[in-house]
Amino acid sequence: MRVAVFATGGTFDKEYNELNGELYFKKTHIAEMLALGRSRVPIRLQTLMMKDSLFMTSSDRQKIASACRSAPEQRIVITHGTDTMEDTARFLARKVTDKTVVLTGAMVPYKFGSSDGLFNLGSALALAQELPPGIYVAMNGRCFTWDSVAKDRTTGVFEEKVRRAKPTARRQTPR
Amino acid sequence: MRVAVFATGGTFDKEYNELNGELYFKKTHIAEMLALGRSRVPIRLQTLMMKDSLFMTSSDRQKIASACRSAPEQRIVITHGTDTMEDTARFLARKVTDKTVVLTGAMVPYKFGSSDGLFNLGSALALAQELPPGIYVAMNGRCFTWDSVAKDRTTGVFEEKVRRAKPTARRQTPR
Amino acid sequence: MRVAVFATGGTFDKEYNELNGELYFKKTHIAEMLALGRSRVPIRLQTLMMKDSLFMTSSDRQKIASACRSAPEQRIVITHGTDTMEDTARFLARKVTDKTVVLTGAMVPYKFGSSDGLFNLGSALALAQELPPGIYVAMNGRCFTWDSVAKDRTTGVFEEKVRRAKPTARRQTPR
Amino acid sequence: MRVAVFATGGTFDKEYNELNGELYFKKTHIAEMLALGRSRVPIRLQTLMMKDSLFMTSSDRQKIASACRSAPEQRIVITHGTDTMEDTARFLARKVTDKTVVLTGAMVPYKFGSSDGLFNLGSALALAQELPPGIYVAMNGRCFTWDSVAKDRTTGVFEEKVRRAKPTARRQTPR
Repeated sequence: MRVAVFATGGTFDKEYNELNGELYFKKTHIAEMLALGRSRVPIRLQTLMMKDSLFMTSSDRQKIASACRSAPEQRIVITHGTDTMEDTARFLARKVTDKTVVLTGAMVPYKFGSSDGLFNLGSALALAQELPPGIYVAMNGRCFTWDSVAKDRTTGVFEEKVRRAKPTARRQTPR
Repeated sequence: MRVAVFATGGTFDKEYNELNGELYFKKTHIAEMLALGRSRVPIRLQTLMMKDSLFMTSSDRQKIASACRSAPEQRIVITHGTDTMEDTARFLARKVTDKTVVLTGAMVPYKFGSSDGLFNLGSALALAQELPPGIYVAMNGRCFTWDSVAKDRTTGVFEEKVRRAKPTARRQTPR
Repeated sequence: MRVAVFATGGTFDKEYNELNGELYFKKTHIAEMLALGRSRVPIRLQTLMMKDSLFMTSSDRQKIASACRSAPEQRIVITHGTDTMEDTARFLARKVTDKTVVLTGAMVPYKFGSSDGLFNLGSALALAQELPPGIYVAMNGRCFTWDSVAKDRTTGVFEEKVRRAKPTARRQTPR
Repeated sequence: MRVAVFATGGTFDKEYNELNGELYFKKTHIAEMLALGRSRVPIRLQTLMMKDSLFMTSSDRQKIASACRSAPEQRIVITHGTDTMEDTARFLARKVTDKTVVLTGAMVPYKFGSSDGLFNLGSALALAQELPPGIYVAMNGRCFTWDSVAKDRTTGVFEEKVRRAKPTARRQTPR
C-alpha cells in the first residue's frame, strides 16, 4: 500500500546558510529522514512547494488539494509549516473527502539536531496507513482531526480545540 | 488519555562505555526522546527491565504481560530489543486481550546519532492511541499485527509474514 | 597552566528560537563543548558579550582588549563572530602585546549539528597553549597571525593575506 | 604546507553494525570530519590499517614508522586507538627524529554523536602545523611530548607523566 508524501516546506526543511546566516530552503530532507527511520513503506515523494507556511496563499492550498485529489494513492502525508497547518487542514477538508491525509511539520529544522521532525514523520506515516479517510494533523505525539486542532502561538503546542458543530464519530472501524 | 510506556531495554537504550568500548544499559532515554519530539501525550513511564532481548526469558515476558494487565491505561507502548520482539508480541497476544499494545525498538542505539529510535517511537506512540485492542509491532514505518510479523535476520527488516492456516496451532509450540 | 576563554558571541553560540524561527543568543556553549571534547585544560570561562560580530563596536573591542590585559592568564582563547574577527584581531594587536591570544569562531552554530565549532575550538585551545605571545586567528584548520588573515566573504573561508609593505601604516586607518 | 594524515583505526573510526550489534571498522571518517571542520589545510590522507590499538603489533608500529619516514611531508597527524597510543608514540620517537608527528584519537566513535574526535582532530591538525619536530600526543585539549604522557586506564584521561631522564628544552623557537 503505497503512501504519497507531499513536501510543502515549513521549518521542517529549512537550512542554515553559512555565508549570510539566514535560513532558507534547498530541498526536502524527507527521503533522508525516511532512510534514517529505516522505513520500508513504499512511498511516492513529491515536492509541491518549498514555503514558509506564513506565506502560503489560497492558490498554494489549491495546489495541495489538487495533488491530493489526483494522487493515485489513498493515503497521503503532507509536511507543512506549523504556523498555518490548521488552515490548510481546514481547506483540504472541503476538497478531499475520500482519502486519509495526515499533515505534520516540525518546530525546529530537521538539520538542526534538536528537531522533532523525525518523531513527527514517524507518527504521520504510521497514522496515514491506519486511519480511515479524513484530514488529520499529527503533532506533539498526538493526532487531531482537522476541525479540532489549533496551534497555541505562545507555547508552540498543538492543542485540542472545541469542535464547532456536532461531531460525528471520528473513527468507526479502524483497521 | 494517558498512555503507559514500558521500557525493557534493547538496542534502543544501549550506550557506549568509553572506558572499555563495550555497549551497556544505563537508563532509558524514552523521556529525553519524548521531550525531543515535543510530545504532549500524558504518559506513565516505567522501566520493567534493561535487557538485550536475546537474553529475555519467559519469566521476563511474564513480567511484561503482568505489567500490561495490571496497568490502569488501556493503551501501552513497549520498547523492546528487535531480536525477539515478535516472540514477546506472540506471548502477549495470549495474555493481554483487551488493550492496545504497540511494541517498538531500534536497529541503532538512540545515543548513536544514526538511530531509527525517534522515528519508531513517534510511530508507536501515535498507533497506540489510535488502534483498537490488539498486540502490534511498529517498525520500519509500518505496523504489523503480532501474528503477521517476522524480523528478517539477514537484512534487519521487519516484514509481513504469511499467517499460518491454523493460527490456534501456534499456541502449542511457543518459541 | 590555566587558559582564559572569553565568549563574545558570534554564530558559534547562536540558537534557534522555535517559537518565532529566529536566531538568537542565550548563553555560551563553550563549557558544554569542552566537556564533549573531554578537555582537561584548566580554564576560566567568561562571557564578555553575546553579539553578532557585525554589530561589534570599538567600545566592545575595547572591552575585549581590557579583559585580555587584565587577565591573570598568559594564554587566551576568544570565540568571536567570523565577519569581523580580523578587525578585532587587528585591534587587539595594538593593545595586547605580551600574551598569546587565539580568536576562533564557527560558520554554523554549534547547536545545529553540522558546525565546525568543536573542531575550531580544539584548534584554538591547543594553539593558545603552544604559541608564543601574539594575536592569532584559528579557522579552517589553519592558524593565521593577525596581520596576515582575511575572510573571503564569497566563500566564507579565512585566507592568507599578503602583508602590506608598511605594517606600521596600518595603525593610521583602523577599520 | 601539506600535512600527511595517517589513519590507523582506533575508537575514532569504529562503527556500529546494526545487524549484529557489534562495533567494527569500515573506513576512516577523517575526510568527512575535516569537511565538517571546514578545513582548508592541504592534506594527504592515507589509511595504514584499521585496528583496535590493543591488537597493534610491533610490525604494525614499524609500518607506521616507515610511513612517517618515507612521507614527503614534514608534518604528520596520526589517528590511533587510545589504549596504546603512548606505546606507538614511544616507538616512533626512536625512528622518526626530524618530523613533527602528532598522534590523536577519541574516547567515543566519531559516528556516535558524543565523540571527542572532532575536537581532538582540530587540536592535532593545528599542532602538527605549528610545533617543531618531535613526537606528540594531542588528547583532552592538551599536548604532550611522547616521553611525558600516560593514559589513566581508570578515568580514560591522558595525563602528564614524570619524565624519566633529564629533559631537554621542549620547544625552543616555535614559529
